[in-house]
Amino acid sequence: MGVKLYGIPLSTPTAVVMTCLAEKEVEYELVPVNLSTGEHKTPTHLAKNPFGKIPALEDGSITLFESRAITAYISHKYQSGTDLFRHDNIEEAAMVGVWVEVESQQFSPPIASIIYEILVKPYTGQTTDQSTVDANVVKLSSVLDVYEARLSSSKYLACDSFTLADLHHIPYIHYLLKTPHADLITSRPHVNAWWEDISARPSFVKVAEQVDAIIAKA
Amino acid sequence: MGVKLYGIPLSTPTAVVMTCLAEKEVEYELVPVNLSTGEHKTPTHLAKNPFGKIPALEDGSITLFESRAITAYISHKYQSGTDLFRHDNIEEAAMVGVWVEVESQQFSPPIASIIYEILVKPYTGQTTDQSTVDANVVKLSSVLDVYEARLSSSKYLACDSFTLADLHHIPYIHYLLKTPHADLITSRPHVNAWWEDISARPSFVKVAEQVDAIIAKA
Repeated sequence: MGVKLYGIPLSTPTAVVMTCLAEKEVEYELVPVNLSTGEHKTPTHLAKNPFGKIPALEDGSITLFESRAITAYISHKYQSGTDLFRHDNIEEAAMVGVWVEVESQQFSPPIASIIYEILVKPYTGQTTDQSTVDANVVKLSSVLDVYEARLSSSKYLACDSFTLADLHHIPYIHYLLKTPHADLITSRPHVNAWWEDISARPSFVKVAEQVDAIIAKA
Repeated sequence: MGVKLYGIPLSTPTAVVMTCLAEKEVEYELVPVNLSTGEHKTPTHLAKNPFGKIPALEDGSITLFESRAITAYISHKYQSGTDLFRHDNIEEAAMVGVWVEVESQQFSPPIASIIYEILVKPYTGQTTDQSTVDANVVKLSSVLDVYEARLSSSKYLACDSFTLADLHHIPYIHYLLKTPHADLITSRPHVNAWWEDISARPSFVKVAEQVDAIIAKA
């Protein structure tokens, strides 16, 4: 029994896990979940994720959900590939934990809202709410001011090595750059240099190709 | 240099960290941060948490912020007290990770919104938005339906032992029970039995006494 990832590349949390599996050099099978037919709400999928969301991961007898729990598990279990959690250095590991949480609590809510309003809603026949976009651009901008300061004294968010804290940001920013708000990243020199570095990692380049091929066909 | 926690007991994330430090039998000094004078936005506090929020923790040369990063750090570093992360059992540790993320992503947003609307807004002279309360009661209710099913086959959320996944819920539910929506917990037999168990832990009883003494004075 190998590793099976249930999800689709267009889903940001699924793309995060795909990037993590590539960094850790873990072979896996991507099992598509058809959201348009409600496959994520069927008993088969609910047995993997009782909240009816994607992704879910099976690794032998263990079934997990919640993308950040999955990436932490992969980073801890597999010794191969990149050391994404810096386990051997208690101070660096503590900072990985801090910046993983910063992504979860400070960065992800406003950027997810901007992407949903500008890219997802029109795609599903709904109208973008510009006041929601504007409010979240302001929030994301102040979060990124803190990142700019952090990245002026640290090569990556947690320490001078690429870690899970950086990885979790990549698929979100890939989408943000397809909106009129790319300047949130490109106008900040240290944030932009960090983005150019982390998005060029082979682990993500392959995921980005799959995402962009699906978007081009849609 | 001992452990210093910067925050106040009334802050839910600070109360989570206080409960965790008690479970791990770690002695610490609670250093109050005066939110009403904006102390959390001063350079001294921003050096500890650049997002200007509480809590922050100092442990020797390490300074951390984000409550869930702090509790994970304490659980990993200190061997004393309760084994909150089940490190020696890869399957149980994976489930701790999953249910810590469930609290963060599924449970915390709706319950925090209900508490803010009903308890915090009137206290600060603002008006409760009932439609926001209603929408979040619906969301929290479906999350707790999943909890009810989970807790009918598992004594605690992650496994049959009390872990960080349970601990992170306690201060939020303590406040929810002070609103007209206590039945979200009390009407679900397994959720209610779990709540009665986890809220009776001496680690939280002491924190609850401090919280309730402050509320009684306000």
